[in-house]
Amino acid sequence: MLSSSLEKLITEKALNLAAYKAEHVSAPVSLHANENPYPPSPELLNELRESLETLELNRYPDPDGHKLKARLSERLDTAPDNLVLGNGSDELIQLLIQVFCNPGDRIAFPDPTFSMYSIIARGLGVEPYPLALNDQWDFEAPENFELWKKERVKIVFFSYPNNPTGNCFSADEIQKVLDHFDGIIVLDEAYYDFARKTFLDKLKTYPNLVLLRSLSKIGLAGFRVGYGIADPCIISHINKMRLPYNLNSVSQFMAERLLARFSTVEEQVNLLLKERERLNTQLMNTEGITPYPSDSNFILFKTAGDGTTLHQRLLSQGVLIRNLIGHPRLKDCLRVTVGTPEQNQQFISFLTKKASE
Amino acid sequence: MLSSSLEKLITEKALNLAAYKAEHVSAPVSLHANENPYPPSPELLNELRESLETLELNRYPDPDGHKLKARLSERLDTAPDNLVLGNGSDELIQLLIQVFCNPGDRIAFPDPTFSMYSIIARGLGVEPYPLALNDQWDFEAPENFELWKKERVKIVFFSYPNNPTGNCFSADEIQKVLDHFDGIIVLDEAYYDFARKTFLDKLKTYPNLVLLRSLSKIGLAGFRVGYGIADPCIISHINKMRLPYNLNSVSQFMAERLLARFSTVEEQVNLLLKERERLNTQLMNTEGITPYPSDSNFILFKTAGDGTTLHQRLLSQGVLIRNLIGHPRLKDCLRVTVGTPEQNQQFISFLTKKASE
Repeated sequence: MLSSSLEKLITEKALNLAAYKAEHVSAPVSLHANENPYPPSPELLNELRESLETLELNRYPDPDGHKLKARLSERLDTAPDNLVLGNGSDELIQLLIQVFCNPGDRIAFPDPTFSMYSIIARGLGVEPYPLALNDQWDFEAPENFELWKKERVKIVFFSYPNNPTGNCFSADEIQKVLDHFDGIIVLDEAYYDFARKTFLDKLKTYPNLVLLRSLSKIGLAGFRVGYGIADPCIISHINKMRLPYNLNSVSQFMAERLLARFSTVEEQVNLLLKERERLNTQLMNTEGITPYPSDSNFILFKTAGDGTTLHQRLLSQGVLIRNLIGHPRLKDCLRVTVGTPEQNQQFISFLTKKASE
Repeated sequence: MLSSSLEKLITEKALNLAAYKAEHVSAPVSLHANENPYPPSPELLNELRESLETLELNRYPDPDGHKLKARLSERLDTAPDNLVLGNGSDELIQLLIQVFCNPGDRIAFPDPTFSMYSIIARGLGVEPYPLALNDQWDFEAPENFELWKKERVKIVFFSYPNNPTGNCFSADEIQKVLDHFDGIIVLDEAYYDFARKTFLDKLKTYPNLVLLRSLSKIGLAGFRVGYGIADPCIISHINKMRLPYNLNSVSQFMAERLLARFSTVEEQVNLLLKERERLNTQLMNTEGITPYPSDSNFILFKTAGDGTTLHQRLLSQGVLIRNLIGHPRLKDCLRVTVGTPEQNQQFISFLTKKASE
């Protein structure tokens, strides 16, 4: 076979797919990926150091993640069989689509939102069904769900709070979906710790509700740990599809220990929330910059000038933030992650310098 | 929605799927999962200990795994753009099926073999097309590939050496597939280090050939690191489908360092190969036991008596091996991983006791 004939073997869904653009530029001040700016505490790292021998790293990980699930179960007051662990919540998004969709089916999501819903769906031959947000970036439920049904919408994903707009959608509007939509409703609460709003208490009433959470925003992005909370029937079908050893031993260990020492995370979150307010005020006071209200650890803002120019200018000063140029409604919008007070200060001082020059 | 209505939302492919049975029983002597019995060396663990601060574990991992790929590239004498990293090679099997198959297409594989090919395919709505091995567990290529074409076979997976039979198929028969099959040919060389036979040198001639390798059998099962080697066109399409942060930072680090200190692994492999021969001789000399020739770090053997009884009897003595009762051609067949000399001795002494009682 000739190398040039290879493309003929590739499915159309793969040929047409555009990959997620993971920005992996090294910059002195990284405020582009919504990570926790604080590294794992010395105490947490020491626990890992001391446990490396007992983790039996030449052995396959626990396929059921018993210890981590027990810890989550205790924290969330839910049974372990309501829980599933993922190699990041990305993997759980993929599994949900595999379990509930066939090719040609659709997944709905407010738009703009986290781009992986659409990318993962397309990779499985499932089509996106975007629901335009209003001018306040809020979601408005449809009058009825006939159109969704007709369009073969099997799952709706709510990023709550929404990445990249930063806000939590009106709970009343989501409630309408819970009350009237006969498919799967996913509340992706990856940024829950910064919003402290959740649909967790609705799980018992709505068996078609799935919650996703992540430890990537609160300190363990490098370990890739996400989890889902749902009815045991949903969990058991995800488990059938899940690759049996999807979460490595060290990530399981670190996630369990981070949760056991959660007061450290809470202190960091409290500090970041204060910084978010400070940053927001500074952005509001900057000429040519309009920040949007945030329930997350990042702030979306619109620039009066060219967004890409500003993005590049900041990068040349060593500050990397996220350019959202790819979405038609986010022209000249940039997203900055709330960092340490020093990082935020650097960002603001370069931004202000730019705006005034 | 009632909990009882949930099942109606689940796709048929998910309802019909039987999960992979990952045995996670704790036993003093674990010889069931084809792991390296030797834990990572103290030197390797110390490197991790000393690097935890610099790994920036609050940040997302390198989505392209540059350092690990550079190391692999050097070892394999292949360009980095011929390489893709996976969260275990399981994930790469899934990605290959996503890239090259639509639902209703098929994947072929010699049978019996590693059960995940079939399970992963079914999870994507792709059907298995098993190719019965002959009585020597060898693969015989078909006269022509018309039937494969008719049956929509897009990929053929060869576990080489084959799990669970242990042997490498005749290279001549695989060569016929390379010469005449117009689909994707995957050589899953997860056990390469024990066979030291590879199709790596055929990659340049056959752009539709994909090699899979793993670090799970040589010491890092707990970290889940697999990789694929293929034409850059195939790699680029896998990368589009791949979840961007699929391999966590610590696994990337450990894999790179294990490869940098590979002489330790080589010593372990040499010892295991000697043990494999010793174990094989002992099995041949045991009444009622027929071992099959192995190119791997495990041996498949047939028992004259009931396999499950023997499996349970060994387990009650603290020795866990793998019962392959699920496959019709493996009735009364058990698979034992080559362990340390002490573990192998324990296994043999309990086995012999059983056989002579």
